[in-house]
Amino acid sequence: MTTSIETRLNQKMSAPQLASDGGIRHFLGVEGLNKAQLEAIIDKAMSYFDDSGRLINTDELSGKTVMNLFFENSTRTRTTFEAAQKRLGANVLNLDIARSSTNKGETLRDTLWNLEAMSADMFVVRHSASGAAHFMATEVTPNVAIINAGDGWHAHPTQAMLDMLTIYRELVTKTNKPFDELSVAIVGDIKHSRVARSDMSALKTLGVKDIRVIAPRTLLPKGIERYGVNVFENIDQGVADTDVIIGLRIQNERIGSPLLPSTSEYFKAYGITESRVALAKPNALVMHPGPMNRGVEIASSVADGAQSVILKQVNNGIAVRMAVMAMAMRGQELMRV
Amino acid sequence: MTTSIETRLNQKMSAPQLASDGGIRHFLGVEGLNKAQLEAIIDKAMSYFDDSGRLINTDELSGKTVMNLFFENSTRTRTTFEAAQKRLGANVLNLDIARSSTNKGETLRDTLWNLEAMSADMFVVRHSASGAAHFMATEVTPNVAIINAGDGWHAHPTQAMLDMLTIYRELVTKTNKPFDELSVAIVGDIKHSRVARSDMSALKTLGVKDIRVIAPRTLLPKGIERYGVNVFENIDQGVADTDVIIGLRIQNERIGSPLLPSTSEYFKAYGITESRVALAKPNALVMHPGPMNRGVEIASSVADGAQSVILKQVNNGIAVRMAVMAMAMRGQELMRV
Amino acid sequence: MTTSIETRLNQKMSAPQLASDGGIRHFLGVEGLNKAQLEAIIDKAMSYFDDSGRLINTDELSGKTVMNLFFENSTRTRTTFEAAQKRLGANVLNLDIARSSTNKGETLRDTLWNLEAMSADMFVVRHSASGAAHFMATEVTPNVAIINAGDGWHAHPTQAMLDMLTIYRELVTKTNKPFDELSVAIVGDIKHSRVARSDMSALKTLGVKDIRVIAPRTLLPKGIERYGVNVFENIDQGVADTDVIIGLRIQNERIGSPLLPSTSEYFKAYGITESRVALAKPNALVMHPGPMNRGVEIASSVADGAQSVILKQVNNGIAVRMAVMAMAMRGQELMRV
Repeated sequence: MTTSIETRLNQKMSAPQLASDGGIRHFLGVEGLNKAQLEAIIDKAMSYFDDSGRLINTDELSGKTVMNLFFENSTRTRTTFEAAQKRLGANVLNLDIARSSTNKGETLRDTLWNLEAMSADMFVVRHSASGAAHFMATEVTPNVAIINAGDGWHAHPTQAMLDMLTIYRELVTKTNKPFDELSVAIVGDIKHSRVARSDMSALKTLGVKDIRVIAPRTLLPKGIERYGVNVFENIDQGVADTDVIIGLRIQNERIGSPLLPSTSEYFKAYGITESRVALAKPNALVMHPGPMNRGVEIASSVADGAQSVILKQVNNGIAVRMAVMAMAMRGQELMRV
Repeated sequence: MTTSIETRLNQKMSAPQLASDGGIRHFLGVEGLNKAQLEAIIDKAMSYFDDSGRLINTDELSGKTVMNLFFENSTRTRTTFEAAQKRLGANVLNLDIARSSTNKGETLRDTLWNLEAMSADMFVVRHSASGAAHFMATEVTPNVAIINAGDGWHAHPTQAMLDMLTIYRELVTKTNKPFDELSVAIVGDIKHSRVARSDMSALKTLGVKDIRVIAPRTLLPKGIERYGVNVFENIDQGVADTDVIIGLRIQNERIGSPLLPSTSEYFKAYGITESRVALAKPNALVMHPGPMNRGVEIASSVADGAQSVILKQVNNGIAVRMAVMAMAMRGQELMRV
Repeated sequence: MTTSIETRLNQKMSAPQLASDGGIRHFLGVEGLNKAQLEAIIDKAMSYFDDSGRLINTDELSGKTVMNLFFENSTRTRTTFEAAQKRLGANVLNLDIARSSTNKGETLRDTLWNLEAMSADMFVVRHSASGAAHFMATEVTPNVAIINAGDGWHAHPTQAMLDMLTIYRELVTKTNKPFDELSVAIVGDIKHSRVARSDMSALKTLGVKDIRVIAPRTLLPKGIERYGVNVFENIDQGVADTDVIIGLRIQNERIGSPLLPSTSEYFKAYGITESRVALAKPNALVMHPGPMNRGVEIASSVADGAQSVILKQVNNGIAVRMAVMAMAMRGQELMRV
């Protein structure tokens, strides 16, 4: 049911991320969520695997209309969201939003209100502008939940949560070592990575004390220290005795720029190689958000090696996306009553 | 099951719009339908709202294959049709028809026959050529129902019916004032608007006696008087004491042409402003098919104001599309027996 | 569940086409399958028609995730596969694979592994490179079945099987004449046709003794004789007393080349006309994989005539695709236990 603009303006929430029971209302970023909430997402995601570790289907979004609004193209993220939506039984609408009325001079606000009036229950939003998902969350009525599928350089919260789920499944449950005893290194272009930003926040909230970022100064954001992380310019020192090494994708367009000398020099200085992995703890996890540049930020032998959990990250991404969508739909229903 | 060409030629119907029980067989335009049939569509659409005014889901198209054939791009109309199809439980196939074999020199007729042979039960057709949907309705066998989602400057019948549903829901049921006592004004580029054409026809069939069109002479079709409407070149006179004001979108490509001086001059002369709305009846409805040019054909304060039902039109569009598709599927099944 | 690269390398199968019970595991081509297996596909496809000859729906792929990977655009084939998948109750994901990470320099192998990690149960693959589907079948784990929807000039096995189903439904069952008593002629550009290649193989396996290919020498592959077919350069001699005439599409880009003089000369020399059809057996079937060039490889009167089963082929295509997908999913499940 649509509401008048005035009603809708009064319904704007100051803390749109949370539902009235403290659960998730929208899923905009990991920053606004506390430890219990992140753990609830991980627990929920774990519940989507059967005894043999395969993903199950549920009916938690049955009869609900979910619209995927990808203002920025991302086949990989869109596909995993759609796979998750279909496993939850949702009616899925993929909007070719780049070709829609926003191009006819309609404002983002008008586009959004129109889409909401189509009785959508949830928008999954990917946008090149930082804060786009937050803006939308302040504009929609309680009838719609917003899921952030990546906005500019700001955040990629489902990627962060799938990384957390991967560490939990592959390390915490297998070794009985809790998050607060882990040492996690993130290697690469921290400066331009929404994944790095979201990962650091989630790791911190989950209690990880030793978070390390490894990069040349040119690929570190100014004021990185305020994240409470340990900064290394030398990768051998940075990965020493870590439990997890997360490699980041180098954007090809940056190579050859003043920021990045050449791919071979970068690999020599910061590539995740077998000998560097050997400096970490035995059975340390090697992670990467993909798509990988083999031979640039990671050696092929490491990417395909026994310690790599890169493909498991992809699989966990479906479970995490199922979890945040099911939880946000529940939170949205709580808002209605 | 496919049939030979000869059988198929004998099955062509002279009045393809109607089913054997007088219900809908195809939905090509509002012109061929009588008052009882339009009222049946409105009643059916009303049945898709629950007590709190939210759209429900049904299984009326469960197991049916619906193909969306958008020869002309229209994200908004396609999305509302797809949302409606999924609420009815249909199997939905979106054809990227612009890239298909029609480009390989195949005729529209061959394309159509091939798509029908894929066991489609319904085609939803949008085409830039006037009469395209009617042509298709004469070509297909009784196994397929055709829904017109807009053809050239000719008709946009589901838009007309969602406008009628909006007037019914927001005015007729709330004020107990029947259609034949209403005064409805349509403002803008009547000449190039399939919405205006379909609206005038539907309003007339439903008994509206005072239909007004408001536009400069250059934006009125020749022979407009034969529609039995009252023509106004002065908007203040045109909207006086009306119950409903329907604004039309000005196509940007016409602005600056001999037909249209400039956007600011147009707004000054024909823009729907607060002071003009005040000339209409108290609580008169303000409608617009979208997407809006704010500050050109309508003031932002009116578009977002208390009398605007523009977003409700979008929502009603889902219900109306559910209604005509469910009714046409029923009509198509009657043809089979 | 994803597995490490090493495990996956050990799981590569030497004969990936077959399941452990002799049924279908992947569906890569008709070449690897014996008569009983082709007959099983035809039987399975026949089971998808109800008593009035209309396609039914089943739940054989309910809860399964099927990804359509069309590296080469083909609206017709993709749509029939998607229609078949939805009739089987699958969760369908259409990947805009041309715009995905393969463009960001990711290898086909990495793309494939990532898609598999999204918990896909089946990939339907169309690729311009011969052998692409076979390559994929050697790369994936037992969790995924591969269906070849056409690869380069190599094979188009579901087209071949829908041709076999059409001959079976329209000739074998209606005349009680078994495959080994039939005479089948294929007319046109045999050299560049994956359909011709797959058809010849399937016909031979099903026992057809008199397979004829009719084409000018320039449109015949070298060593055509090793297929055990009878070669005719004269169409009147070639179609004489045949039970089935299969026309092939002439690629427009070949017309005017040294291979093809002109469309009118080609039609004169090799067009399937009424008088030529009259040379075949009474009630011989006329087939064509579509899209047709009317007046080039086939006369319009023949295409639309009483002996044409061209639209029935399209319809049978849905049933055959349902059959191979259901059988491969069953074969894939057998691999898991």
